[in-house]
Amino acid sequence: MKIAFATGNKNKVLELKKILEKTNIQIIQKNIEIEEPRSESLQEIAITKANYAVNKLKMSVIVEDSGLFIDSLNNFPGTYSHWVYDKIGYIGIINLINKIKTRKATFKAVIVYLEPNKKPQIFTGEKQGTIALESKGVDGFGYDPIFIPKNETKTWAENPNSKNQSSHRQMAIKKFTNWATTNL
Amino acid sequence: MKIAFATGNKNKVLELKKILEKTNIQIIQKNIEIEEPRSESLQEIAITKANYAVNKLKMSVIVEDSGLFIDSLNNFPGTYSHWVYDKIGYIGIINLINKIKTRKATFKAVIVYLEPNKKPQIFTGEKQGTIALESKGVDGFGYDPIFIPKNETKTWAENPNSKNQSSHRQMAIKKFTNWATTNL
Repeated sequence: MKIAFATGNKNKVLELKKILEKTNIQIIQKNIEIEEPRSESLQEIAITKANYAVNKLKMSVIVEDSGLFIDSLNNFPGTYSHWVYDKIGYIGIINLINKIKTRKATFKAVIVYLEPNKKPQIFTGEKQGTIALESKGVDGFGYDPIFIPKNETKTWAENPNSKNQSSHRQMAIKKFTNWATTNL
Repeated sequence: MKIAFATGNKNKVLELKKILEKTNIQIIQKNIEIEEPRSESLQEIAITKANYAVNKLKMSVIVEDSGLFIDSLNNFPGTYSHWVYDKIGYIGIINLINKIKTRKATFKAVIVYLEPNKKPQIFTGEKQGTIALESKGVDGFGYDPIFIPKNETKTWAENPNSKNQSSHRQMAIKKFTNWATTNL
């Protein structure tokens, strides 16, 4: 069966295609313009976008969303992580919590799978960690240089293997692909 | 004639009512739920909201929006000023630009007046200034304790008279009421 992945990010599509290549599920990229609703819930945003995409494409879709939620900043930047990154970068985040002791943060991801006239299926992933005292590492993108996963000492930008193996996104993708290979 | 002011803020309504009390324009508050679109343009947001309000209320409406645009932060927090304030407060803004020399910022306001089946009328106001090195003053609200208007030395929270006389909002309100008393 064919599923549309509503995203502008080719790499995300290739990644998922590879995981599902020996199944009967075929992922195709649909780079459609979807208005991002204002909400503090990743899940709510992804469901709204999935409904929009299904109505537009008339086929089964998946939508993925993720964000960095920092405890001491009331979950800032959260669902606005991408926009905030464009404005103030990871250096902005370091400056914001410079004087704060609690540096706990959680990366969250959600994948919503939606078939026309069905209820959405929701798959979530989380990775707990802390915001580093200073940025370190050159790999990855976004907030990777300032995020240290729980029980580790290096940022994701220093240790991309850690991210590839156990990120919030990887967790959500695994849940989705496990479900999809059994149920679709 | 009656105009609905789509806002949850009673004080804004009272303020406008007072200015227009000797005219034939009657402002009534309509605290309707309007979804805030994601956009970096105050004007675009206000026009979208005004269209929604007119469709819902079937009468002429005004919508007002404002935000603080900081030069060295790529116009952050801008149209997300309210949300950002709830998350990181004005202290967050101070921490963000602590190490930056350029502290220029602009408060912007827009009022959109829309009659059913007409084009929107747009009234804007701006106030240039700088972000203070530290917060000062107890009056006002929001970012007032860290905003020093151009050619002044005190924050709006220290000198609320300055804000009452020449704020971005006051400028937009004056433009609207001048136009309204001639054209409506």
